[in-house]
Amino acid sequence: MMIFSSGLYVHKNMKSKILNYLKEKNDFVSGQDISRDLQVSRTAVWKYVKQLQAIGYDIEAVSRKGYRLIAQPDKLFPDLIQDRLGTKVFGKKIIYLESTNSTMNDATRLAIEGACEGTIVCAETQTDGRGRRGRNWVSTKGQGIYFSIVLRPHIPLSQAAALTLVFAVALSKAIRVTTGLEAVIKWPNDILISKKKVAGILMELSAETDHIHYIVVGIGLNVEGKAFFGLPQATSLEQQLGQGISRVQVFQEILRQAEEHYALFQKKGFAPIARIWREYSATLHQQVKITEARSTTEGIAIDIDDQGALLIQERSGRVVRKITGDVIHLR
Amino acid sequence: MMIFSSGLYVHKNMKSKILNYLKEKNDFVSGQDISRDLQVSRTAVWKYVKQLQAIGYDIEAVSRKGYRLIAQPDKLFPDLIQDRLGTKVFGKKIIYLESTNSTMNDATRLAIEGACEGTIVCAETQTDGRGRRGRNWVSTKGQGIYFSIVLRPHIPLSQAAALTLVFAVALSKAIRVTTGLEAVIKWPNDILISKKKVAGILMELSAETDHIHYIVVGIGLNVEGKAFFGLPQATSLEQQLGQGISRVQVFQEILRQAEEHYALFQKKGFAPIARIWREYSATLHQQVKITEARSTTEGIAIDIDDQGALLIQERSGRVVRKITGDVIHLR
Repeated sequence: MMIFSSGLYVHKNMKSKILNYLKEKNDFVSGQDISRDLQVSRTAVWKYVKQLQAIGYDIEAVSRKGYRLIAQPDKLFPDLIQDRLGTKVFGKKIIYLESTNSTMNDATRLAIEGACEGTIVCAETQTDGRGRRGRNWVSTKGQGIYFSIVLRPHIPLSQAAALTLVFAVALSKAIRVTTGLEAVIKWPNDILISKKKVAGILMELSAETDHIHYIVVGIGLNVEGKAFFGLPQATSLEQQLGQGISRVQVFQEILRQAEEHYALFQKKGFAPIARIWREYSATLHQQVKITEARSTTEGIAIDIDDQGALLIQERSGRVVRKITGDVIHLR
Repeated sequence: MMIFSSGLYVHKNMKSKILNYLKEKNDFVSGQDISRDLQVSRTAVWKYVKQLQAIGYDIEAVSRKGYRLIAQPDKLFPDLIQDRLGTKVFGKKIIYLESTNSTMNDATRLAIEGACEGTIVCAETQTDGRGRRGRNWVSTKGQGIYFSIVLRPHIPLSQAAALTLVFAVALSKAIRVTTGLEAVIKWPNDILISKKKVAGILMELSAETDHIHYIVVGIGLNVEGKAFFGLPQATSLEQQLGQGISRVQVFQEILRQAEEHYALFQKKGFAPIARIWREYSATLHQQVKITEARSTTEGIAIDIDDQGALLIQERSGRVVRKITGDVIHLR
């Protein structure tokens, strides 16, 4: 476990081994024991413990008793995320960054370099976090879960847009499971609680006609924070719960739900996803106004089709299919 | 007009002006006249003429008579392509390269940097020309038309794959118009003449859920060449015609047809393109075998749907929809 000057976090090395050793023992262990069991010098043990303390691990060091792990830091460190995660692919490789411009950029670069499916880039903060269509996503340091995941699905290009809804369903369910809060989906890519935005989903892809090179899905979720000055439409899990919640726990559940629903989508198509989407949707059966660059559509959102497009029934009775646009829920 | 050491071709400068001047006069013109009309020194005129001769323009220089353009080089220089091209957008900007690894790479880089729709990169040869799914495309120097074009269509992602067929239709028609040869389309992206491959089309794109950032379409067309040793399935326009044909003329017609059919597709959807595709198709009504990574489908190709997918009727009567795969025409 190391944090390089670039902020890159690499796990599974000696520091990680020492940490796991302390976790397993869950009591004082002597430097001598660690040294013997992990085949590392006592001086090195001492050095690594100092480094762990420096990045936020509360490790007590008492002479003649040894070391004891008291508390883990409130960070999205890979070994915290991967501890009893239970996924097969998602999060098997996690790149952790204290700060980056956008995890979308990092994950895209990794995808181009051949990163395997499920590779994740997460960051404590983003200086240029992106929303849909180049909009900004505020990423307050240490308060949210900001990550991007590399996907390499075997689906036709025409089905790719529906992946946003697959992740919307998974993210809503993860929030519901971990908090009990009624997270709902505002088509196409926002997650709301009590009509306020708590999370957003972004998808970018590179493809040729009949082959998707890679897809990068990004998720931004506000976990901590009691007030959102200047962002009246925003909220956080903490604000809604009235108390804090472990970011690690929520992150893990997101990865589990995302992997499960992604597998379901690839195996059974969009239909089973659409069923859950309808259940979670804040948009369905609503009077909505959809604004695009050159047009506006108003009517009742009656359904989504098998490509994730929203079907709007206008007052005239005509049904219009919408792939894109900004949605206002009118009542 | 300059060729930098990188091979980059820039037009519309003094060299280009002198060339156009010579073209318009179509007879001997004195260095003095050129110097006066174009506001450039006679020494510079002489220097530019030498440069033009060096890149293949046959310009006669006779003392007391001046300069006369006898013949243009057999090159895909932008000013040759743009001369009476007549398109509105396609080819308004052309980057010409003597050699490159792949025009797809160059055009993609330009697209990322913000190149506008219709920007073209063409090359006399490609050292790493690409076909579908990372396969190789042989690009014999000076014998073909190898180019990529940047597109920024306002279409949903689910319609993007159909663009390959739009360009297949346009390319077939351009070949038919300029040569009279019966070019046909082998689904999804090959153009055949007399059952041999004369051209291929490649499409790559970058998008988010509801917005296409850019599409790059690449075309490789064998124009010259009388024999294709080691490539028994390949042919060229020259081989099929029994005589040579101007690459510039064919290139221009490709750009005109592509612009026209691309506009038609954006305005009226895939239906009018599908009608022409059916007329030009070598695949339709054929007994075909489609091989994919893990499966094989055999049956009669009965139609394409509105996303460009091929519909195969199996012996059992069941109709299977194919977005991808390698096609073998069985008889």
